[in-house]
Amino acid sequence: MSAPRETATQTISYSDLVALLAQVFLRHGTSAEVARVLAENCASAERDGAHSHGVFRIPGYVSTLASGWVDGKAIPVVEDVASGFVRVDAGNGFAQPALAAARALLLEKARSAGIAVLAIRNSHHFAALWPDVEPFAYQGLVALSVVNSMTCVVPHGAERPLFGTNPIAFAAPRAGGDPIVFDLATSAMAHGDVQIAAREGRSLPPGVGVDREGRPTCDPKAILDGGALLPFGGHKGSALSMMVELLAAALTGGNFSFEFDWSKHPGAKTPWTGQLIIVIDPAKSAGRDFAERSQTLVSQMQGVGLQRLPGDRRHRQRAESLREGIVLAVSDLQQLRALAGQ
Amino acid sequence: MSAPRETATQTISYSDLVALLAQVFLRHGTSAEVARVLAENCASAERDGAHSHGVFRIPGYVSTLASGWVDGKAIPVVEDVASGFVRVDAGNGFAQPALAAARALLLEKARSAGIAVLAIRNSHHFAALWPDVEPFAYQGLVALSVVNSMTCVVPHGAERPLFGTNPIAFAAPRAGGDPIVFDLATSAMAHGDVQIAAREGRSLPPGVGVDREGRPTCDPKAILDGGALLPFGGHKGSALSMMVELLAAALTGGNFSFEFDWSKHPGAKTPWTGQLIIVIDPAKSAGRDFAERSQTLVSQMQGVGLQRLPGDRRHRQRAESLREGIVLAVSDLQQLRALAGQ
Repeated sequence: MSAPRETATQTISYSDLVALLAQVFLRHGTSAEVARVLAENCASAERDGAHSHGVFRIPGYVSTLASGWVDGKAIPVVEDVASGFVRVDAGNGFAQPALAAARALLLEKARSAGIAVLAIRNSHHFAALWPDVEPFAYQGLVALSVVNSMTCVVPHGAERPLFGTNPIAFAAPRAGGDPIVFDLATSAMAHGDVQIAAREGRSLPPGVGVDREGRPTCDPKAILDGGALLPFGGHKGSALSMMVELLAAALTGGNFSFEFDWSKHPGAKTPWTGQLIIVIDPAKSAGRDFAERSQTLVSQMQGVGLQRLPGDRRHRQRAESLREGIVLAVSDLQQLRALAGQ
Repeated sequence: MSAPRETATQTISYSDLVALLAQVFLRHGTSAEVARVLAENCASAERDGAHSHGVFRIPGYVSTLASGWVDGKAIPVVEDVASGFVRVDAGNGFAQPALAAARALLLEKARSAGIAVLAIRNSHHFAALWPDVEPFAYQGLVALSVVNSMTCVVPHGAERPLFGTNPIAFAAPRAGGDPIVFDLATSAMAHGDVQIAAREGRSLPPGVGVDREGRPTCDPKAILDGGALLPFGGHKGSALSMMVELLAAALTGGNFSFEFDWSKHPGAKTPWTGQLIIVIDPAKSAGRDFAERSQTLVSQMQGVGLQRLPGDRRHRQRAESLREGIVLAVSDLQQLRALAGQ
């Protein structure tokens, strides 16, 4: 789901979209709390123009819940391990409710210890990663998160896929402006963007992926049909992807991207892995106020000719969506309403 | 300095090289402690085949010390800020002695809190970054470090340079083998490698840099002579480079890569910035032993056809150097001995 320009569209307010998506989740077997968290997450992505992680994901969530692969009613178990270390067993549920359950403790530890880590395991992450870090920046904290996913990326120098798209997200406060936020797949392209290109019949730039024989291809369908993605930036992106496997899986107690078997759950789409979030309190830093310093960096970046900061497009789209509503294809909205039982 | 294949060479043992380099540092104005730390650091790089950060760096260290830009006798001031946060004011000295001074406290905090951060400011880093993280992995800990440097990289989408080469280094323990270690410049190439290419008259692959007019060039001299490097991996590498500025400078109280002015110190080569190190204790993780898990990942990477792990080449070269000695050009060895006053 997403709205190609030539199709008929309709606008919906952010809060109405959240309510509609919450109904979809509830109707397909989640608890009210999980429905609330996932609906806000998914509607936020759509609101911010991150279409590959917006309502486009809903059919995947629905088929996954129907398959019995994920527990939509799981209650996360939060463990207070040390003054800077929180663990959560997501209980084969989604990662976002696990973060929500541990968030207050993580914040308290970060402010007290200066840095804290949240290790989520036994969790499914099927969303954009920036919504997990951005709120910390609005609270004056610096946050970094990594999540591994499912085998679809060939390590640089290898022959067959092993890593997931393994994104890294970062958020930092900025004085007098939106936080600095980025969310980058360590693959040459995010999996959702390949799916969208396939659906729209677009070809991809060179260097994104290989076909099932391991040959370079620009055809998104060949990548999805037994082929694989490549890491971004050659051996460097590949090293970062490996780091994400170690931090998000080995350090949390979660599965590596190649360790889960969903073959008995047709329709399952959500990787069953782990997620790590590191939060740092810049109030513990020496020198001038961090948010003032990050604004200095931004000014200098603009001074050397940078037109658009990481996160800028999302923040602009967000403002527009909140002002004028979120634009969806009429057919997508109809499908969402049908899924919600309306 | 480094040994092109056609030149006459001589071998020297690691411990003799450390002693020789320590004499060079001492004779050019460092304290005995700083000489010891920098000599071990630089000899380690040479021993491991990391020539761009080995004895090649010595003339730069010497001219910098002579210029009065850095304080070779600085005594780092360690501040115990919170249960997971250590700060060091390096006192306009080198970063490695600052790390050495804070190391025991950082380790104690990481083991107790589960995670700890070391924020070094007012420091000069002119070396490889992996030697700063690798020792933590040998002690069973996971370590991540970033350091910013000096303006020489054009942010993706900008017109003029702003960022430093801003490397990211990572180390993690592995059962039954050397740790997994990488150290990657967020520029398309490390500055030292551009310098070596210029000296050897080699041209660079496309995408590495631009000349002083901002035009793409493969000539390393054009990059060094008023030109600039590009980030690796387009906007993603650029975002990571920006993150390094924020973590290594804004969060430590150090200078951004564009904030120091060494024009009054001819011969100065060492960036005067900051460095951040995050250390995590995987013993706090849920599930199986971390080092066993990282070995599982390595086996799987080899299983999909990976021939060489990040860090492998360094570990192999290290073993060879310790067995057979470190090979240096005779002319380089003579120069080092002259600098040591022998």
